Amino acid sequence: MRAEPQSFDRVLSSMCTEPHPAAREAAERFLATNPGDPGTYPTVATLEDEAIELLGEIAGLAEPAGYVASGGTEANVQAVRIARERADARRPTVVVPESAHFSFNKAADLLGVELAVVPTADDGRVDLEAVRACVDEDTAAIVGVAGSTEYGRVDPIPKLGEIADSVDALLHVDAAWGGFVLPFTDHEWHFGHAAVDTMAIDPHKMGQAAVPAGGLLARSADLLDELAVETPYLESTSQATLTGTRSGAGVASAVAAMEELWPDGYRDQYVRSQNNAEWLAAELESRGYDVVDPELPLVAASIPTQLFEALRGEGWRLSRTADDELRVVCMPHVTRNQLESFVADVDRLEDEVGIEVPVSGE
Amino acid sequence: MRAEPQSFDRVLSSMCTEPHPAAREAAERFLATNPGDPGTYPTVATLEDEAIELLGEIAGLAEPAGYVASGGTEANVQAVRIARERADARRPTVVVPESAHFSFNKAADLLGVELAVVPTADDGRVDLEAVRACVDEDTAAIVGVAGSTEYGRVDPIPKLGEIADSVDALLHVDAAWGGFVLPFTDHEWHFGHAAVDTMAIDPHKMGQAAVPAGGLLARSADLLDELAVETPYLESTSQATLTGTRSGAGVASAVAAMEELWPDGYRDQYVRSQNNAEWLAAELESRGYDVVDPELPLVAASIPTQLFEALRGEGWRLSRTADDELRVVCMPHVTRNQLESFVADVDRLEDEVGIEVPVSGE
Repeated sequence: MRAEPQSFDRVLSSMCTEPHPAAREAAERFLATNPGDPGTYPTVATLEDEAIELLGEIAGLAEPAGYVASGGTEANVQAVRIARERADARRPTVVVPESAHFSFNKAADLLGVELAVVPTADDGRVDLEAVRACVDEDTAAIVGVAGSTEYGRVDPIPKLGEIADSVDALLHVDAAWGGFVLPFTDHEWHFGHAAVDTMAIDPHKMGQAAVPAGGLLARSADLLDELAVETPYLESTSQATLTGTRSGAGVASAVAAMEELWPDGYRDQYVRSQNNAEWLAAELESRGYDVVDPELPLVAASIPTQLFEALRGEGWRLSRTADDELRVVCMPHVTRNQLESFVADVDRLEDEVGIEVPVSGE
Repeated sequence: MRAEPQSFDRVLSSMCTEPHPAAREAAERFLATNPGDPGTYPTVATLEDEAIELLGEIAGLAEPAGYVASGGTEANVQAVRIARERADARRPTVVVPESAHFSFNKAADLLGVELAVVPTADDGRVDLEAVRACVDEDTAAIVGVAGSTEYGRVDPIPKLGEIADSVDALLHVDAAWGGFVLPFTDHEWHFGHAAVDTMAIDPHKMGQAAVPAGGLLARSADLLDELAVETPYLESTSQATLTGTRSGAGVASAVAAMEELWPDGYRDQYVRSQNNAEWLAAELESRGYDVVDPELPLVAASIPTQLFEALRGEGWRLSRTADDELRVVCMPHVTRNQLESFVADVDRLEDEVGIEVPVSGE
């Protein structure tokens, strides 16, 4: 193989990161196993049970059901699928905040369900009045986001659970990114805090496992039964996953990362990442840019397109929010040094491209 | 990590195998990349283009469209989804042989399409008259299997293409397992032989890549466009895959395996596997068991349940066909020594469990 995998030195746009060394080692050892065929590969099947136990511990669920998915998209698709199967409505609807990840659009397209998209309030959290006005007997599920992709915002999950209960709908929480930082905050986001039915929580994001290691959790096994298809030819007899053959590397690395880091290592990482986010937010603000307050380790700031493109030209991997803001995700591989170097490039390039820095608020 | 991944010494039931050393090395190097975010991870995105070029070469397609999927299930689901999007019918139908993989049931359930299951003839290939009788204006696609999961049979793909054309339906070929052995046989199975629109062809099965490395090929890019959703937050703008974040390890290992093995290494492996299958078939037949002729490297044989269970008790990982036959997949990790040891266990356990061996044909 001639190609060199790129370094993470300038990656500020990704919600994935370098796997923890223990996670990498476990992934390499289990590369040739398939948890999709648990009869044939029993060791990795046992590891998957451990992964779900650990995810349950993190997410406030004493007896979790679930599996290690390919990622948050699969977990979100499967949660919507469970809700569709549970619903009585001929045309079931899923209520999602406008801050929800685009995988819900994919789910709706795949599964033939309607999305009812509700606005967020000024604080970036879903508008509860709008949710209340929107639900009815066709509502199969309400989605709450615990760590939104653009701004790291956490919806009022307990209130969403009450609304879901009032119309006999399921509550799905998308904590794909947030799940490994939220335990160290005051947010109410998980099964122990609210009437949550299903959750996406990805070890391969803030959990520092190797891709592919997403997580689908369900409050009870009967919810997963909605997904089961029969599996002839395998040693096992049914399968609830979206994919068939699956990566043992992902499963093993998830267990290794969680055993190594839960809870202290993750807490330390949260503190580092959150401090980095607050530092970057303050630096950008002091230069006159509008910055969205980083409640979780994710910074969004309005910078001129010309500057954005010039930074990209320097090799910084950056992404934008829908409102065209710069978006920096403070993942574990993002260090203070790296951010200092980024801010130095901001200063240098402002001059080079001749940017008139706006005064904040104008 | 305490657990030891199991060895392949007694695995006769899997359609996956130990990755080739070059594939393993590439997987390990690209563990921390995500081809689902090609703007941020451009190196692995380029490797994915190479993977699709190579898969196209194997499958007779000069200008292939496609992507590296999580596996055959995703490729089959996505092919059915393309057909659904293309169809005019309100309730589109997909015609599948009864020999088709259970992932088509998963696809139908997910996507809300009807499956019309047609029988196979005595030779294990789909009954063409039954297909002709079954298609109509609601037919969105016909599925042909090129290397069936149970018996390794190859449907008459060119004829299926003609029937599909006659009702303006797509033809999808499931060569997930067969695609890396069929090039060395006389079968007509690929884009160069017939009016094939889409194909599942998995590097992580006979292609000796690391999981997850499936393949979805399409005759033209506009077919893939049916799958695209918009992708805010990423550096790229749309995504045709079923999952979001994807494994760079799978992509890199697929390229490494194909560069190393196509065509000579795969041909040598096909010859070894096919000889092993024919040897095992002859050994079982000589002991009085009914054996399905192994057209591809896969052996099915009727053995008593008591013997099957006794073999499992010795640690052999075995699976069954729907008709309760023993099914042995002669993957690259399955050696002649291993099969000799298996047959020795058959002889020993026949005595131990007191089996009266039937005379073939009775």
